[in-house]
Amino acid sequence: MKNKSITERDKDFAQWYTDVVNAAHLASYTSVKGCIAIEPNGYAIWEKMQEILDKKFKELGHVNVQMPLLIPENLLKKESDLVEGFAPEVAWVTIGGSKPLEERHCIRPTSETMFCDYYKDHVSSYRDLPKLYNQWCNVLRWEKETRPFLRSREFLWQEGHTIHATEEEAKKETDQMMEVYKWFHHEILAIPSITGLKTEKEKFAGAEYTLTNEALMYNGVALQAGTSHYFGQKFSKAYDVKFLNKENEQEYVYQTSWGTTTRMIGGLIMVHSDDYGLVLPPRIAPVQVIIIPIGESDEVLNLVNKYETILKENGISVKKDLTEKSPGFKFAEAEVNGIPVRIEIGERDLKENKVTFVRRDTREKIVEDKDLDLAKYTKELLETIQKDMYNRALERRDSLTFEAHNLDEIKEILNTQPGFIHADWCGDPECEAKIKEIKGCKSRCITDEPLVDGKCVCCGKDAKHHVIWGIQY
Amino acid sequence: MKNKSITERDKDFAQWYTDVVNAAHLASYTSVKGCIAIEPNGYAIWEKMQEILDKKFKELGHVNVQMPLLIPENLLKKESDLVEGFAPEVAWVTIGGSKPLEERHCIRPTSETMFCDYYKDHVSSYRDLPKLYNQWCNVLRWEKETRPFLRSREFLWQEGHTIHATEEEAKKETDQMMEVYKWFHHEILAIPSITGLKTEKEKFAGAEYTLTNEALMYNGVALQAGTSHYFGQKFSKAYDVKFLNKENEQEYVYQTSWGTTTRMIGGLIMVHSDDYGLVLPPRIAPVQVIIIPIGESDEVLNLVNKYETILKENGISVKKDLTEKSPGFKFAEAEVNGIPVRIEIGERDLKENKVTFVRRDTREKIVEDKDLDLAKYTKELLETIQKDMYNRALERRDSLTFEAHNLDEIKEILNTQPGFIHADWCGDPECEAKIKEIKGCKSRCITDEPLVDGKCVCCGKDAKHHVIWGIQY
Repeated sequence: MKNKSITERDKDFAQWYTDVVNAAHLASYTSVKGCIAIEPNGYAIWEKMQEILDKKFKELGHVNVQMPLLIPENLLKKESDLVEGFAPEVAWVTIGGSKPLEERHCIRPTSETMFCDYYKDHVSSYRDLPKLYNQWCNVLRWEKETRPFLRSREFLWQEGHTIHATEEEAKKETDQMMEVYKWFHHEILAIPSITGLKTEKEKFAGAEYTLTNEALMYNGVALQAGTSHYFGQKFSKAYDVKFLNKENEQEYVYQTSWGTTTRMIGGLIMVHSDDYGLVLPPRIAPVQVIIIPIGESDEVLNLVNKYETILKENGISVKKDLTEKSPGFKFAEAEVNGIPVRIEIGERDLKENKVTFVRRDTREKIVEDKDLDLAKYTKELLETIQKDMYNRALERRDSLTFEAHNLDEIKEILNTQPGFIHADWCGDPECEAKIKEIKGCKSRCITDEPLVDGKCVCCGKDAKHHVIWGIQY
Repeated sequence: MKNKSITERDKDFAQWYTDVVNAAHLASYTSVKGCIAIEPNGYAIWEKMQEILDKKFKELGHVNVQMPLLIPENLLKKESDLVEGFAPEVAWVTIGGSKPLEERHCIRPTSETMFCDYYKDHVSSYRDLPKLYNQWCNVLRWEKETRPFLRSREFLWQEGHTIHATEEEAKKETDQMMEVYKWFHHEILAIPSITGLKTEKEKFAGAEYTLTNEALMYNGVALQAGTSHYFGQKFSKAYDVKFLNKENEQEYVYQTSWGTTTRMIGGLIMVHSDDYGLVLPPRIAPVQVIIIPIGESDEVLNLVNKYETILKENGISVKKDLTEKSPGFKFAEAEVNGIPVRIEIGERDLKENKVTFVRRDTREKIVEDKDLDLAKYTKELLETIQKDMYNRALERRDSLTFEAHNLDEIKEILNTQPGFIHADWCGDPECEAKIKEIKGCKSRCITDEPLVDGKCVCCGKDAKHHVIWGIQY
């Protein structure tokens, strides 16, 4: 049954998004302007994201640390690009313990500064390298317009900050972490993202280059979902992070940083969800299966418990709903909350030895023999859902992927149906700026695919790069 | 071998503590006054604490959320006790996005305010209750004197905030969570803490009552390590958090909060560690066993790998140290880092089919047959270490537990060797204040043990409470 509190996706995408966030109890606005409360259903998704990414980071040798929330102004100012990039959007603490501070401190918008400040005192020789540190924390950027998960003043993220003895090793790390983000989107979130290089204009303040992971939402708008930066020695020179290399000479370390945020929850919603509420891929769903009894006979309840035990023992995240609500209400709740599989066990079905499985993604009802090999069947069903969700997202992305050979074609595409637009570029920032004038269409990334036609989509001169363009959140 | 960078514990306890924190790479001072960087070894302990506590919280029905970091001043001011308690030590954000803010925001010193603000809009009926929410986050209190883990301006913690339909249920929650903290200290941290009620003077700002978990450090100084507060309807009235009860009447919710912090890492150090560095109880140690080869023969390395595999398969957290450092250096490093069991595998021993186990807590070397039942043996050894550490801590606590019948006795105890002092109290805050004049001796908690002698240790009048007193961190 259509959830009445949810606007139709094709009618008003922005309102639909807000409605899904509310109806699935993912987040809520608060009395703090531009800041959200992440509610239990939303936070459980973040916990699952953390669990999977953290495990992967650690397998690759990273360790977690925690640096201070506050950054003294003089320290932030040491790297001019960084301060120019972030100063306009930071929040400043000017009073502490009832007294004006001698030096104001900003709340971290990102922590390159604090990691450099730490590394400076903790690295002396190549034997101390690499340092592969990551932190899970909150950051703050004083955004003007905010939307739950997509853009809020405070958000949660992980920020990896690594330092290395050689350029080669640091670049390899930059690549590797982008691969991790891509893997996470494709394999876990069922989002067929694309990856590539940011242009000079779009790269991170202070980076030599930035790799980016870009996802396309259902409405054809792009979402940056994970970036990995190579800094070379830029920060290490600004913050004096040196080491004695194998040749016994002082050298500045080579540095990277990489991050993903709670914004990925917004991406998940906007790629997969529908008019009935949230739809979660099984691999990221905090609850994969919900069992709902119809009626309260012993036979029903015994089977509910038996199913729960079997699924739990087989490593499937399962809940049963034994509350006093009506079965219909429970079905609707499971649906709006995006639980991938719902198992309905009722007396009428049981008379024929049947139970009903309902897929959240397709809303398909499948009646099965109650004595089936439950664990095997459910695992396969979850995997099928995961794969189908990826394929549907890929089909949607492909159907919203276009080629343009001149500015008029870009305009036409954006006036009809935005999406990823493949078009060549000469590399001139002026052309990039002109393209941006068309509805704010930005370069998403430079891909290493062959050129489209060899001519800059803007000026018509020889192209240097095949770029994917799009409107962004 | 004695670690030269560590001052002797019995010579200068404060310096010893700092030295252990540094030598075991648990935390480091930063350029931000009063704020520390929690380094990988320290953060791994916090992750383990989080893992164990979070699992327990969830088993008891709690879910995690995330509320904003910033609290607008008008919202904080709604509850007068809270604002009086915390206003002197908060940090204020007055500028955001380059502009002075119309209303300043403090960085949360605690989040009762934000939870109430959230609950107010999300609870309408008794059917919505209880709400059993917790959050893991950072908080900030502008302390003047700071010490790593024990007292720093920013620290990490968990704060549970629950609301209930009845007083009885909320009080049960308050008790239950104190039991969890006690369990965590006794069973996991091997710290024989005591629990009881805070006096009116020492309770949390705004609470009806506060339960506390108090640990005694090696030097006889007390450390508050977890509190659980019952608020009754005080906050719900101030923030207007109402619900329709079963009798169809509007009623204010009954509320609790409870928290533990990274300070527990300081407690762990000060209860268990020694002149050789950190000593960790096996149940909280991020790495329980380290295997160190002596020599590089195939026979040695094969056994190292075999042992590693067996221990891993049996759920023991194990690392092998195959770096280029000398075995002696590796032994010292494992020791200073507090890894509970070190296994040394060397050619000489292997000729006699022997390997060496070294207990970190007693530094005892145990030579065993290399073909022993490794998993069983190691599990038992870890459990023995856990138990022995608890018992040693209990002995130490008992040896530093005293009874006093008048102020002179309190003075004498504190001049000789501080500890937990059991003494009766009439309940008059003036007597409490007078006792505090003796070297800052505070009531740690009111216990429900029988009265010591029935007379107030200060004024000699009839006593109401048996109180445990002590000097605190």
